[in-house]
Amino acid sequence: MSAYARLERRFARIADIQGALAVLSWDREAMMPAGGAEARAEQMATLSELAHDGLIAADTGDLLAAAEAEASGLNPWQSANLREMQREHRRATAVDPALVGAMARATSKAVMVWRDARPAADFKALAPALAEVLRLTGEQASALGSALELAPYDALLDGYEPGLRGAEVDAILLPLADFLPDFLAEVEQAQAPARPRPGPFPVAQQQALGRLLMARLGFDFSHGRLDESAHPFCGGIADDVRITARYDEADAASGLMAILHETGHALYSAGLPKDWRRQPVGQDRGMALHESQSLLIEMQVCRSRPFMTYLAPLLRQHFGATGADFAPDALYRQAIRVERGFIRVDADEVTYPLHVVLRYRLERALLAGDLAVADLPGAWRDGMQELLGITPPDDRLGCLQDIHWPIGAIGYFPCYTLGAVLAAQLFQAATAAEPAILPGIEQGDFAPLLGWLRRSVHGHGSRYELPELVRLATGQELALQPFLDHLQARYLS
Amino acid sequence: MSAYARLERRFARIADIQGALAVLSWDREAMMPAGGAEARAEQMATLSELAHDGLIAADTGDLLAAAEAEASGLNPWQSANLREMQREHRRATAVDPALVGAMARATSKAVMVWRDARPAADFKALAPALAEVLRLTGEQASALGSALELAPYDALLDGYEPGLRGAEVDAILLPLADFLPDFLAEVEQAQAPARPRPGPFPVAQQQALGRLLMARLGFDFSHGRLDESAHPFCGGIADDVRITARYDEADAASGLMAILHETGHALYSAGLPKDWRRQPVGQDRGMALHESQSLLIEMQVCRSRPFMTYLAPLLRQHFGATGADFAPDALYRQAIRVERGFIRVDADEVTYPLHVVLRYRLERALLAGDLAVADLPGAWRDGMQELLGITPPDDRLGCLQDIHWPIGAIGYFPCYTLGAVLAAQLFQAATAAEPAILPGIEQGDFAPLLGWLRRSVHGHGSRYELPELVRLATGQELALQPFLDHLQARYLS
Repeated sequence: MSAYARLERRFARIADIQGALAVLSWDREAMMPAGGAEARAEQMATLSELAHDGLIAADTGDLLAAAEAEASGLNPWQSANLREMQREHRRATAVDPALVGAMARATSKAVMVWRDARPAADFKALAPALAEVLRLTGEQASALGSALELAPYDALLDGYEPGLRGAEVDAILLPLADFLPDFLAEVEQAQAPARPRPGPFPVAQQQALGRLLMARLGFDFSHGRLDESAHPFCGGIADDVRITARYDEADAASGLMAILHETGHALYSAGLPKDWRRQPVGQDRGMALHESQSLLIEMQVCRSRPFMTYLAPLLRQHFGATGADFAPDALYRQAIRVERGFIRVDADEVTYPLHVVLRYRLERALLAGDLAVADLPGAWRDGMQELLGITPPDDRLGCLQDIHWPIGAIGYFPCYTLGAVLAAQLFQAATAAEPAILPGIEQGDFAPLLGWLRRSVHGHGSRYELPELVRLATGQELALQPFLDHLQARYLS
Repeated sequence: MSAYARLERRFARIADIQGALAVLSWDREAMMPAGGAEARAEQMATLSELAHDGLIAADTGDLLAAAEAEASGLNPWQSANLREMQREHRRATAVDPALVGAMARATSKAVMVWRDARPAADFKALAPALAEVLRLTGEQASALGSALELAPYDALLDGYEPGLRGAEVDAILLPLADFLPDFLAEVEQAQAPARPRPGPFPVAQQQALGRLLMARLGFDFSHGRLDESAHPFCGGIADDVRITARYDEADAASGLMAILHETGHALYSAGLPKDWRRQPVGQDRGMALHESQSLLIEMQVCRSRPFMTYLAPLLRQHFGATGADFAPDALYRQAIRVERGFIRVDADEVTYPLHVVLRYRLERALLAGDLAVADLPGAWRDGMQELLGITPPDDRLGCLQDIHWPIGAIGYFPCYTLGAVLAAQLFQAATAAEPAILPGIEQGDFAPLLGWLRRSVHGHGSRYELPELVRLATGQELALQPFLDHLQARYLS
């Protein structure tokens, strides 16, 4: 057997372990009783170690070197697969096992403290544990950086979206930080006052409608499930995608839009190349591209005017919702309402990037040592005031709201806004290439859109790095302009 | 660190993998969409191999030898743990790792085929996959048999209930095969005619009552769940027990009794010694003892006259069930009604052992090569006619009804009847030792019973082998007589 074939075998086993972890993780959030937490943590730690052991094993390195020597015999998919194997191996071996262990302990502790500190708005309680996580993340970033010849922050970014660099993030986020505050003020002035639509919207009906829309969008229930959890997410594996929702009887829109968002993630997972299911090249390209797929479905498609034409009669059927508030135009105006708020996950698409800019600035400063952990709450308040013109009354609504930093996820936040920008660019290219997409949305026929996404994005898996994938799909370089055009068209015309 | 301490560490990791497998297996039956089957089979095969790898690793054998030499320093629990480690190691090293993986894949496939073949009564569809499972099971039995110096069938039995041999099974099943057909005829003549109690009994109410009874019996919902699956079972791990049920709106009793049965299993799991959770000695003693715990709860406790006194008002509350048919005596007469039927899991305690005798004969013949898979349906019909005097009209009601053979569980069926026999013996001992048990049942107070079971059975884990556990708990050897006494007292007096 060739070295490459042996590597495929090894990585298939690693993928099995990661697939098992994905189910265990879904179960933990959606099914597991509280008393199962301790045993589950042990199970997941052991499986994570086993997957890591497979990656860093000495003979994995030997096999990779031997496969490089055979590389001329590989087809393009296999070559890309080998490149991804090497990427995973290089990242896994760059960090000392002792540091991996220290990170696991430090983040476990920080999360535990964070769970109590957040509702209590007690940043001081979190500060020492967070400082330790940041210190170790800095060490990790340096180790990865020297192994990969990247700046420390870039080395972390690269873990979430391969090939993404701070320079590209700057090129998107800095103009947005300039543009959005004034734009936001203009949109606020132009939009009609909010009209709350009183419920109740029974949960069972929300679920039924959610399932119907999922199926229409292309979610295959023979390869996935919809369940409930405290925070909606998309988990599982490509052939068994598990999405979750949460419901509020007083507000059907938020639960429904969360389902549609997760459905975008799910369609991406399910559309990954079937022939490469258990190989690195068969996995999603990264967090920014993943987020582009959820935001394309939620923001570009399902908060659009044509979608509301399709949705309005369904709301009548499911909730008996009639009257002017449930006419397509009213639904659309409500779906694109903009409002300054403290909480990122509740933000609309105009304010969301400003939340990301704030976090991006702060996490870069924290990692570089230019901002002390003790000064984070003040810097957060100043940043919110500058970018969004509001100041959170406490740290619960401020720098304690996200789990990302306590789990050491530095470099993750920019992917959200890169995803929004990519979504606009991809949707623009899709509708230009396929004239049936826009009329289809109005009729609940999403097949033309899904077809384009399957061909242009999903089916490539990790065969291309992000910049090349964007070029192939859109004929252009990654660009901010389509997102700006979209904002202009949706909010000010 | 001592060799023994290093073994504890290693077996804890193996227990983590097995715990993960238990969740994946529960998910497969209760949650997984059909399209996830293939990937799940791969995941479970890989994890089974990893657990197996840990057991068979060369240094596991070395550590076991070294720990033997230190054994004088171990306390009784540690010594028993070491004995169980050795048992697992011996069984695992007897079978080639490739065969372990092949079994996992073949059984996953057979289960998937069985799920379609059973409702379609299409044995031919299952036959090739089943033949493959049986072929591999035969290889496994031979390998185990030569390593353990046991006959092939005994080697499989020993995997389900350590120390149990075909000779002991014969000593229980052969007298029952002689005794029961005539006894059954006598009971049928003596019992009052059936009085069907028309439903519907809404599923939600059946679930609610099931949960209430589970909680009363001692099931802790912060450490477990109740869900649905095609075939009720108890899975998960001690700290997170997952039981499943199935419901029939026309018949509340069958769903409810299945829940109570699985609750018996669950109480055993949850009552295993907390200090030994991730060690071999902390696991259940075997399937026969496990089944004794479910049958003790279902047959000895919940189909008793005192239990019906407790249950009657609950049926009124949940289903508005009133009138003579729902009086305690009528409920009791109905709960102990005996009826020849095709389906084992619906069988009463008089006919159930005859279903087991049939399967015991057939699986011994299949394993020995005396019966071809293609001839199984005919042999099944003949055996049913001989033992129960009825012939199933199709294979759905015949040899396709059970999941056991598709999952390669040969040697498992006898444990059900060994369990029934043990349940009678243990319950006799319990009520003799604790006078509060019987009056407690009438009042829905199961604490005295649970206390005795925790002390005498559950809390021992695998510290003792079965014969010694029976002696400690009852003061007697394993015996058929208490079961015969129980049948006589319940059905003919």
